[in-house]
Amino acid sequence: MPCQNFDYCFNNNSDELRGDSRKKIAIVGGGNWGSAIACVVGKTVKAQDDVFQPIVSMWCRDSRKPGDTTPSIAETINATHENPKYLPGRRIPSNVIATSSLLDACESAHILILVVPHQGIPQICSELRGNLRDGAHAVSLTKGISSTSENDVIRMQLISEDIEKALGVECSVLMGANLAGEVADGKFCEATIGCKSLENGEELKMLFNTPNFRIRVTTDYEAVELCGALKNIVACAAGFADGLGWAYNVKSAIIRLGLLETKKFVEHFYPSSHHTYFESCGVADLITTCYGGRNRKVAEAFIKSDKPLHIVEQELLKGQSAQGPPTAQDVFEMLEIHEITEKFPIFTSVHKIFTGEHGEQELYDSLRNHPEYD
Amino acid sequence: MPCQNFDYCFNNNSDELRGDSRKKIAIVGGGNWGSAIACVVGKTVKAQDDVFQPIVSMWCRDSRKPGDTTPSIAETINATHENPKYLPGRRIPSNVIATSSLLDACESAHILILVVPHQGIPQICSELRGNLRDGAHAVSLTKGISSTSENDVIRMQLISEDIEKALGVECSVLMGANLAGEVADGKFCEATIGCKSLENGEELKMLFNTPNFRIRVTTDYEAVELCGALKNIVACAAGFADGLGWAYNVKSAIIRLGLLETKKFVEHFYPSSHHTYFESCGVADLITTCYGGRNRKVAEAFIKSDKPLHIVEQELLKGQSAQGPPTAQDVFEMLEIHEITEKFPIFTSVHKIFTGEHGEQELYDSLRNHPEYD
Repeated sequence: MPCQNFDYCFNNNSDELRGDSRKKIAIVGGGNWGSAIACVVGKTVKAQDDVFQPIVSMWCRDSRKPGDTTPSIAETINATHENPKYLPGRRIPSNVIATSSLLDACESAHILILVVPHQGIPQICSELRGNLRDGAHAVSLTKGISSTSENDVIRMQLISEDIEKALGVECSVLMGANLAGEVADGKFCEATIGCKSLENGEELKMLFNTPNFRIRVTTDYEAVELCGALKNIVACAAGFADGLGWAYNVKSAIIRLGLLETKKFVEHFYPSSHHTYFESCGVADLITTCYGGRNRKVAEAFIKSDKPLHIVEQELLKGQSAQGPPTAQDVFEMLEIHEITEKFPIFTSVHKIFTGEHGEQELYDSLRNHPEYD
Repeated sequence: MPCQNFDYCFNNNSDELRGDSRKKIAIVGGGNWGSAIACVVGKTVKAQDDVFQPIVSMWCRDSRKPGDTTPSIAETINATHENPKYLPGRRIPSNVIATSSLLDACESAHILILVVPHQGIPQICSELRGNLRDGAHAVSLTKGISSTSENDVIRMQLISEDIEKALGVECSVLMGANLAGEVADGKFCEATIGCKSLENGEELKMLFNTPNFRIRVTTDYEAVELCGALKNIVACAAGFADGLGWAYNVKSAIIRLGLLETKKFVEHFYPSSHHTYFESCGVADLITTCYGGRNRKVAEAFIKSDKPLHIVEQELLKGQSAQGPPTAQDVFEMLEIHEITEKFPIFTSVHKIFTGEHGEQELYDSLRNHPEYD
C-alpha cells in the first residue's frame, strides 16, 4: 500500500494509545455519491481537527476480475485523488485515504458513513458485524426499502433498521437534494439528517455542514429515509413523462401526486411520523431528482427504447444502477401484502411499466383517476 | 337592483324571460391565459348545456391605436377562432364569442371569470360596478397582491377582496400548475379553486373540471390566492439562478425555501389559513412556474443582459408582462411596513435585483444564510 498515512489511518485503537479523543470517520462506498461526500467530509474534518481526526478512510469495492493488473479504484484514488470511473474531474481531498479492505477502513472508526447501493448492505454488514469500535454510530445515505418476516408476517423495515440490527450501532440517515457532481463542486445545496438521538444528529451535522452544504436535523428519521427512497420511484414516473413528450404541467402533477403517495406510505407504515416534507429530503430532493437525477434519465431512455433495463443502465450509468426500479418492486410487493395498491397508482404503475404490464395509457390514467381527486 | 333603462333590464333578464335558468359565463380578458381558459370553458359549457348556457362571452381589450383599421382581437377571434397574438395555433371553440365591449360581455353573466393582469383590475371593476346581474359571482385567475389603507394604516388585501369590494359579488380564485399553451392543448393538468362558499366553489368545479383539467376545491382561499401570486417571485429567483448558471440542487433549494417564505407570508397576514401547500396551487404550480413559466424566462434574460426590464419583457412576451417584478415590489413594500423583510430574504433579494440594489452575491447569501437554517 503506497500510503504514508496507512498506520495512522488504519491501525485500530492507535488513537487512544496516543491519547487522541477525536472522532475518526470512515466512508463505506466509493461510487458517485460516496466520492462526492468524501469531497465534503475531507474538508470538514480538516477544518475541525479539534473534533475529528483529519484522516478519513474510504472503502472502495475492488471490482477487478482475477488476473486484472490495472490499479484498483482505491489505489487510483490514493495516487490521483480522483475517482475517474464514478466522479471524473473532481478532486477528492488528499486526507481521504482509500482502501479495498472493508475492515481496515471501518474497524477503528467512530462514525461510519454508509453509501453503497441497497443490494450491497447485507454483505457489508455481515463482514463488519462484531468488528466495530464500541460506541461507534452510523449514518446511511443508501436509498431503498427493506422488509422483515416475523411469524410468517412480512412487515416493512427501513434500511437503517437493517443496519442497526446487523451491526448493533445506532444508524441515522442523510437525504436531500444532492446531485453528486454539484456537491463535489462545492455548489450550494441542502440536506436533512434524520436521527434517533439528537446527540448523534448534532455530531453528524458538525461533520457534514458547510456554508455551501446546509444541514438541518430532525428526529423524524422514518419520513426522511422514506422520502429519500420513494422519490426515486416518482423520478421514474417523471422520466417516463419526459420520454413520452408530456409537458411541464403533467410533470408537476406527477411530482405533487408522488409526494402525496410518499406521505400516505409513511403515514401507513409509520403513523407516528411527524412529517418533514418541507425539508430538503422531501419536496426539494423530489424536484432535483425528477429534473436532474439518474432515475429520471434511465426511465426516459427505457420508455423510448426497446432495450431491457439492464442494457439501458449499462449505457447510461457506467456500471452503477438506478435505485428506482428495484425500489418500485419492493414497494409494490409491500403494497400488495397490505392490499393497498389502489391507493398508490403512480408507485404501482411505475413498477408495472418496468415489468411490461403497463404502458403509456395506464400511467396517464394513474394520474387522471388518482384517488386524490375523489 | 333598480332598473335604470329598458335595454339594460331586457338584456339582463332575457334568459329568465325565455324561461332559461342555465348559467351564463363571461370571460374577462383575452390574453394568453384568458384564451387558454376559453378553450376549456367553451367545451365544458357545451358538454353540460343543461347547467350552463352554451354561448360564452369573452371580453378582449381593443388595444388598437386611433386610425388603426386592422381587426380588433375580438373580431379576429370571432372570425378565425384563434388568438394569433397571445395563443397562436390553438383553436378557441366557436361557442366562445368575443367582444371589445366589457359591459356587453358581462352584464348578463352569472359567473365572471376575471383573467387580466393585476394592473387592469381597478379600471375593469369601475366599469362593471353596478352593472352586474343580481346573484352573479366571480372567479379571479389574476396574480398579485393588493393593499388597503384604513386610518393611515396600510394593510394587506387580496385581489379577490378588491374585486368583491368593488363589484359587490363573491369572488373565488383559481390557481394551479397551468402553463396556458398546455391547457389549451388539452394536456393533463390540475388546478385548485379557493372559495368562500362551497356552493359557488362546487359550481365553479363543474364549470372548469374535465378528465384532463382536474380541479380540487378548498375554502382556504387566502392561501390559494397567495400561492398563485408569490410563486412568481420565487420563479424570478429560479430564473436568476438559471441565468447565473447555478445548478439543480440550488434551484431545488430556491423552490423549497421560496415555498417556506410563501407559507410564512400567509401565516403572518392570514393566521387562520389552514394551508394548502400540497394542492396544485402550492408545490405543483411553483415547480411548473420555476421550470416552464414566463417569469423564470424574463428573470433569466434580465440577469444575463444589461437591458432594462421593460425591454426584456417586450422582446420575450410580445406585449404581455411578467407579474413577478411588480408582485415582488408590492410584497417588499408590505414587508417593510410590517418590518419583517429579514424573514423573507429571497422575496427581498428578488425585488432588489430588479431595482439594481442586489447582485448575484446577495441572492446567493439569501440562500446560504436563510433563517430556515437558524
